[in-house]
Amino acid sequence: MAPERLRSVDAYWRAANYLTAGQIYLMDNPLLRTPLERHHIKPRPLGHWGTSPGLNFIYAHLNRAIIDYDLDAMYVIGPGHGGPALFANAWLEGSYSRTRPDIARDAHGMATLFREFSFPGGVPSHVAPEVPGSIHEGGELGYSLAHAYGAVLDNPNLLVACVIGDGEAETGPLAASWHSNKFINPVTDGAVLPILHLNGYKIANPTILARITDAELDSLLRGYGHHPIYVTGDDPHRMHQDMAAALDQAVALVSEIQNVARTASSPPPRPQWPMIVLRTPKGWTGPRWVDGLPVEGTWRAHQVPIADIRTDPEHRRQFVDWLSSYRPDELFDETGCPTALVADNIPTSDYQMGLNPNANGGLLLTPLHLPTAKEFAVSTVQPGDTTAEPTRVLGQYLREVMVRNACYRNFRLFGPDETASNRLDAVYDVSDKQWNASVVPSDEHLARDGRVLEVLSEHMCQGWLEGYLLTGRHGLLNSYEAFAHVVDSMVNQHAKWLKVSRELPWRAPIASLNYLLTSHVWRQDHNGFSHQDPGFIDHVANKRAEVARIYLPPDANTLLSVAGQVQGRGV
Amino acid sequence: MAPERLRSVDAYWRAANYLTAGQIYLMDNPLLRTPLERHHIKPRPLGHWGTSPGLNFIYAHLNRAIIDYDLDAMYVIGPGHGGPALFANAWLEGSYSRTRPDIARDAHGMATLFREFSFPGGVPSHVAPEVPGSIHEGGELGYSLAHAYGAVLDNPNLLVACVIGDGEAETGPLAASWHSNKFINPVTDGAVLPILHLNGYKIANPTILARITDAELDSLLRGYGHHPIYVTGDDPHRMHQDMAAALDQAVALVSEIQNVARTASSPPPRPQWPMIVLRTPKGWTGPRWVDGLPVEGTWRAHQVPIADIRTDPEHRRQFVDWLSSYRPDELFDETGCPTALVADNIPTSDYQMGLNPNANGGLLLTPLHLPTAKEFAVSTVQPGDTTAEPTRVLGQYLREVMVRNACYRNFRLFGPDETASNRLDAVYDVSDKQWNASVVPSDEHLARDGRVLEVLSEHMCQGWLEGYLLTGRHGLLNSYEAFAHVVDSMVNQHAKWLKVSRELPWRAPIASLNYLLTSHVWRQDHNGFSHQDPGFIDHVANKRAEVARIYLPPDANTLLSVAGQVQGRGV
Repeated sequence: MAPERLRSVDAYWRAANYLTAGQIYLMDNPLLRTPLERHHIKPRPLGHWGTSPGLNFIYAHLNRAIIDYDLDAMYVIGPGHGGPALFANAWLEGSYSRTRPDIARDAHGMATLFREFSFPGGVPSHVAPEVPGSIHEGGELGYSLAHAYGAVLDNPNLLVACVIGDGEAETGPLAASWHSNKFINPVTDGAVLPILHLNGYKIANPTILARITDAELDSLLRGYGHHPIYVTGDDPHRMHQDMAAALDQAVALVSEIQNVARTASSPPPRPQWPMIVLRTPKGWTGPRWVDGLPVEGTWRAHQVPIADIRTDPEHRRQFVDWLSSYRPDELFDETGCPTALVADNIPTSDYQMGLNPNANGGLLLTPLHLPTAKEFAVSTVQPGDTTAEPTRVLGQYLREVMVRNACYRNFRLFGPDETASNRLDAVYDVSDKQWNASVVPSDEHLARDGRVLEVLSEHMCQGWLEGYLLTGRHGLLNSYEAFAHVVDSMVNQHAKWLKVSRELPWRAPIASLNYLLTSHVWRQDHNGFSHQDPGFIDHVANKRAEVARIYLPPDANTLLSVAGQVQGRGV
Repeated sequence: MAPERLRSVDAYWRAANYLTAGQIYLMDNPLLRTPLERHHIKPRPLGHWGTSPGLNFIYAHLNRAIIDYDLDAMYVIGPGHGGPALFANAWLEGSYSRTRPDIARDAHGMATLFREFSFPGGVPSHVAPEVPGSIHEGGELGYSLAHAYGAVLDNPNLLVACVIGDGEAETGPLAASWHSNKFINPVTDGAVLPILHLNGYKIANPTILARITDAELDSLLRGYGHHPIYVTGDDPHRMHQDMAAALDQAVALVSEIQNVARTASSPPPRPQWPMIVLRTPKGWTGPRWVDGLPVEGTWRAHQVPIADIRTDPEHRRQFVDWLSSYRPDELFDETGCPTALVADNIPTSDYQMGLNPNANGGLLLTPLHLPTAKEFAVSTVQPGDTTAEPTRVLGQYLREVMVRNACYRNFRLFGPDETASNRLDAVYDVSDKQWNASVVPSDEHLARDGRVLEVLSEHMCQGWLEGYLLTGRHGLLNSYEAFAHVVDSMVNQHAKWLKVSRELPWRAPIASLNYLLTSHVWRQDHNGFSHQDPGFIDHVANKRAEVARIYLPPDANTLLSVAGQVQGRGV
């Protein structure tokens, strides 16, 4: 990378780091242009510093690549505790000021940005709906990669950079989600670029993936079907060069995979999609030692690295030195606005990640063309004179939904291997199951491209569908009633996202997440007790009516009528 | 393997396959010694044939290894739909007749075994509490490996053979659980032998791990830290030789790892534990073609491979041919008892997997030596005159629990990286966190052996603890209240296990699974909405009082009083 580009990327990164630390500690005097006094400092500093400099580094380099390659890119940030980093980047690029006109890109806006962060009446400490560009809440960990893959389905030009923290990587849903790449069709879907961020520590422990050998890690990632590119170190100059080269290589590999697949006369073998492994110190560029104990590069950097800058003069001096090390005078002009040096690394508004319309999917939402219930209704002369399997009838309706919306490619059916046993198999008349792993002659209904996605992980089904909906499409998940509990916690988090999004005027409403619960407790006589649990409905019923609706159709025709609600809002 | 041993292993396997198919279809005339008639056949055949011959193959070979090496072995069967296989093996070895004296090892008992299977008033179609030797219910998939690892903690002589289905392998909890081997201490813990059974199909789809390249699969398993041993094919003679050699090698590697670790003056590097990859056709040895469609080796073998032997003469003929192919006259004597040829592959009762006391852990349960609440109570003269952090006080109590039970090694504390942030860190005065991945000088409280296990996966914490309790020990899981929902579904399944076990007189009660929910909704002001959910209590409250109790201690001293219930029964 040319030295002047590197200077700009580095300045952008320093600016983001400055703004991150500022949010954690300060409520006034954001540029430290007057001596720091007690009343400038938050009474209770909150926030997660540890992951943030790495996230800022990634954002800075993604911006560079977006500018150089005109990428249609968005992000999913698994280490969502790094909220201050993403607020910092949104403020820097200007997307935050668009959603929050009261927060300008000047010293006054910066003071508000700082004060509001993780503060009563302010904004959360996580990457939340309030952050423009996000479709993924930090907090409960495990769902980033599934969200990213859901977002790229039927979005052939989109690149989703998905940062996976090495803490999150220990969760089950994340561990399973690596295999999402077996489903992605390089012709009709976009690309996910996983960036595994190894900073080594969780709250109080090292992480597994940071403490296995390099050879094991490489073997694992290749076993997942990826081509890993490593960026390791702590020297900023060298790391900038390495990260830029890694992103250049990743972008080139994605292009090559897509070009080959999109121009081939017959489908090429499943590609080894690139990914980046970024190994940096936790709390990189932050305080190295505090109170005689190492902080940078250890779990002590996880949250607030210097405890008490309000009353401890040594802590305060250390804080000021830390923020000064970013040389803010090079980064912000007299008014507090980012300097040209920083702004050179900000894409134009059409390309900013904070303004990518896919990340505010309601903007892109087009209504489904739905048949009427009557078109598929079971004929009856009087109640009870006909017998019909409701889900079999629904399958015919869903087949027609697929037909009428085929050219929009905006409706998908997800399930853990039960679409046929749930009697929805009429859809296979018009759509295969999407599957990009290997096939054998006896396989049925498998194809590189298809409207149905099946994997034996309710977590992945739910995560993919959430990602698909949050980027402005429609879908339905079918599952045995009992095993919907597997995603109880994901449902909670999605419901929270919807609730908060409703309160943000700039977030356009997305389509509802539709569950069809089948094989109810009384119809699981053959599988028995392990397959019987009617409790998911309890779990959903405690949500508000703006967020969740429950329907209990007693027969085929009422089920069809309910299916007409498939594009409603909410869970 | 010597030919006569192989003959016996093969005969045992054929007997188990015969008994498996019989359970699915027959309710009388179990040995087919008179012509098969309609009233011998179940009106609705139920059960999962597909996975069963592979499970029987594994059981037969584990028996051989147990006999040759005097192994203290038990099993965990992830593909729990293979219930008829495990009932078959339990009946064959005689452990079933011990728990069900009304079912002898003769033709009459065999008829009852067949009739009861997946039949009204009978036994479930899954590996359930009714199966002697099991600590793991089939049905909801994903928890086998975590259960197996929980079972071997503090059981240095135990070998748990854990069969992982390639369907189950797609789930999140299973995908995460592979990394359990980073925690196992070869000195003080036993060994898990994962057996990944690739039969290629789920209900209606191929499985991911069966459809990636051999090189990718090998890379993945080595990346998980294992030394994979492959057994692939469909020719029984050759497969017997290969499987016997694989088990010999695996047993030798486990012995070597444990011997080296247990005699070393300083801990050797983390070992690459062996595992077996068994690739067989689905529905192996069953019908190859039915109604002109391939069955063996496809998803069509998943459940009942021949649909209608009651009324379709061709189907009936095919069924009789199938069962006759096992040559039952070599396997069962006049009375229906297994012949000497079969019995040669059955360990003596002290070594049978169905009778391993670890799999009926209540038999081994010893009460914890608990301090009284008063020993740690916060002094008060009158209510409200003292301030104390309840969990910090509880940490002191738990430290003493560890001290008083140290020589029994039967109490552990599990959590997703929050033991310290939940203020229980007093336990680190007397115990480290068990961690067998690499360490660096700045690490604190990590050791090869420790009472505390932390991993950022509620699923793994829950699964390990369940495995630990089900094998007769005690423990406590601490988690943020909001994220307990991650394991909602596991809690349901464990509660079901407890409910059914209470109805089985031979299952001795195990210790309760204790949750300490912390950082309640109102105390998550710093982490915000994503960390706030009080609903886990709703989820538990719908269980019966015999199975679950909820305590809401309002202060430190009542929390101590509640802690005295730590060895109660139930969830």
